[in-house]
Amino acid sequence: MKTIDVKIEKIINNSYEIEIGYNLFGKLVYDITQGLVTNVHKYAIVTDSNVAGLYGYNLLNLMIKQGLSVEMYTIPAGEKSKTRENKAELEDKMLEAGFRKDSCIIALGGGVVTDLAGFLAATYCRGIPVINYATSFLAAADASIGGKTAVDTPFATNMIGLIVQPRKVYIDLKTWETLGEDQIQNGLSETIKHACIADINFFDYLVANIDTVKERNRRDKMYLDILEYICQKNIEIKYNIVTQDEQEEGLRETLNLGHTVGRAIEAASGYEISHGNAVSLGMVAQILLGYNRGYVTDEQKNRVIEIYNKAGLPTALGGRAKIEKILDKMYADKKVRKGKIKFVFQKGIGDMMVFGEQFSDTVDGTEIEEVLRIMI
Amino acid sequence: MKTIDVKIEKIINNSYEIEIGYNLFGKLVYDITQGLVTNVHKYAIVTDSNVAGLYGYNLLNLMIKQGLSVEMYTIPAGEKSKTRENKAELEDKMLEAGFRKDSCIIALGGGVVTDLAGFLAATYCRGIPVINYATSFLAAADASIGGKTAVDTPFATNMIGLIVQPRKVYIDLKTWETLGEDQIQNGLSETIKHACIADINFFDYLVANIDTVKERNRRDKMYLDILEYICQKNIEIKYNIVTQDEQEEGLRETLNLGHTVGRAIEAASGYEISHGNAVSLGMVAQILLGYNRGYVTDEQKNRVIEIYNKAGLPTALGGRAKIEKILDKMYADKKVRKGKIKFVFQKGIGDMMVFGEQFSDTVDGTEIEEVLRIMI
Repeated sequence: MKTIDVKIEKIINNSYEIEIGYNLFGKLVYDITQGLVTNVHKYAIVTDSNVAGLYGYNLLNLMIKQGLSVEMYTIPAGEKSKTRENKAELEDKMLEAGFRKDSCIIALGGGVVTDLAGFLAATYCRGIPVINYATSFLAAADASIGGKTAVDTPFATNMIGLIVQPRKVYIDLKTWETLGEDQIQNGLSETIKHACIADINFFDYLVANIDTVKERNRRDKMYLDILEYICQKNIEIKYNIVTQDEQEEGLRETLNLGHTVGRAIEAASGYEISHGNAVSLGMVAQILLGYNRGYVTDEQKNRVIEIYNKAGLPTALGGRAKIEKILDKMYADKKVRKGKIKFVFQKGIGDMMVFGEQFSDTVDGTEIEEVLRIMI
Repeated sequence: MKTIDVKIEKIINNSYEIEIGYNLFGKLVYDITQGLVTNVHKYAIVTDSNVAGLYGYNLLNLMIKQGLSVEMYTIPAGEKSKTRENKAELEDKMLEAGFRKDSCIIALGGGVVTDLAGFLAATYCRGIPVINYATSFLAAADASIGGKTAVDTPFATNMIGLIVQPRKVYIDLKTWETLGEDQIQNGLSETIKHACIADINFFDYLVANIDTVKERNRRDKMYLDILEYICQKNIEIKYNIVTQDEQEEGLRETLNLGHTVGRAIEAASGYEISHGNAVSLGMVAQILLGYNRGYVTDEQKNRVIEIYNKAGLPTALGGRAKIEKILDKMYADKKVRKGKIKFVFQKGIGDMMVFGEQFSDTVDGTEIEEVLRIMI
């Protein structure tokens, strides 16, 4: 018997820059020609069927004009496209088109596109670089930090994937002009969550400026400044949490605020309720639970519910999903509805509860049911 | 416009141990119970249809007896199983069986199993640990170092995958007893290649001991010692090359010795010729080319051809693949057969040619054709 030690220790630097601005295609192409990513001879723009028509061809033509070798690949718009099958199809097309190790992917779109394209890049020829160009508020608020990429399977969402950092992230506020009302609300939903987790001042800022965000009046001089500031704060808050807990051992859990019930509502509605709407309802559920437990005051509870109302997001179930079904989704695989589900809670606004060395505490089905009955 | 710097710098330690021995299941289970991998509550043995019957159930039962939570998943034996579809099928089965982030995969088999299972582990719940238990000579010689994992696609082999390091590698010489003659030859083919690249003394050792390896007489007291030494040298040579060139920028190219023609022969035969046999023929081709160019002497050339003969590996084409077809495979996508194909060459035995700052030089189709005609 013999043992051999294989020593693999190294310092890795995956730092990158996030650029927030208005109409950044020119800057992206400039950065590329200035060597943003080295040793690349071929670019693949990966986008969806909506974004392709709105922005994809513009970027494609701009890159072609610059003499860059580039192709564009499109997946159907929507969460249902985040599949292994679509990943495989893109791989086959790119392999046939001659993309090799000296290639780079530009993910142009929202979270679905950046999730799929990031995962695709990480496993293509055992890893090629990816640049993210986020065109949605939600992608800006959520997907630009943390490096999580994934595809969904029939059994579960986001279970197959990798943590991969992009080479750069662009957040283009111009592309928000073509977002639907619901997409602005989805972004606001996660934004308010971030404020509740970590920053009371940002919460107050949102209360003061949420109408401007919703009105989307570009002639309002403050409008773009407000969006820029919101993007910046979202990034700052998530970045602080993620970098303090890269291995997902604790603090990162706080980002699940409102998501325990939120995801169950999403599933219970058969995914008819959007993620942002479901998170809004989940945020209300957790603040009601927290209020019952004395973690927030009556005023704090009301302020949180009010800001979600102000954002145009739902704060009552209103028949969208049945309580019994929501509980079923939460307690799936569990024989009893007792003390099995972990929740994270706000501590007032802008801070999180700590339970011993953990950020979560278990909650019984009856406790949740009571709160959901208030939300009918 | 605003830019934010996301700083992600860290030291990673992916060091692991390779253990070579005879019948190591007991040691594996012992290591697991001693905390080889922490925070694991569920194990999945991934193996193939041959190895499952020979060894899989033994390991499964041993682990169950130890009170470990474990399931076994089987793919059909053979290179054709290294597909995205088989990976997806395993994912679905494991998700349904409740495998989550606190799981660990044990890859039990040859290179196909360790390639597929390593890739599976790396993307399952965004990464769970994998332990490799190599049951073939080729896996011991080749797959246990370097961390390369992959699946094949209809378009190309090994193009979708990742570099992932296992938590530990076991090389069990007992499992070699059930290998076919051809699998021993496949292992020898890569072993001789390693000796040719980096170690004349190891080459001499192989000349002296190759008969013992082929005879596989366990009553020969030296037999297991020789296998162990061969494993150790294979690891040492590959390790030195891989760690000096982790980014595949140069030195790693030398591991392609004999593979440029070898892979073309493999493809030209419609994969009727095994990888080991094809590499043997490729090694002969490169040494004949090298001889014509004055990189090796007549005696060195003959010694290399002779050792492959002694190993029972082919050194002449003998109608296995047509010369025209081999050239077609090598010069695919290339309009002219002139100076386009890169070759690495032995410099004598145990050293490699260097061309300026590169390890490869281009070779014309006519030069290769001349050599292949000698090999008929």
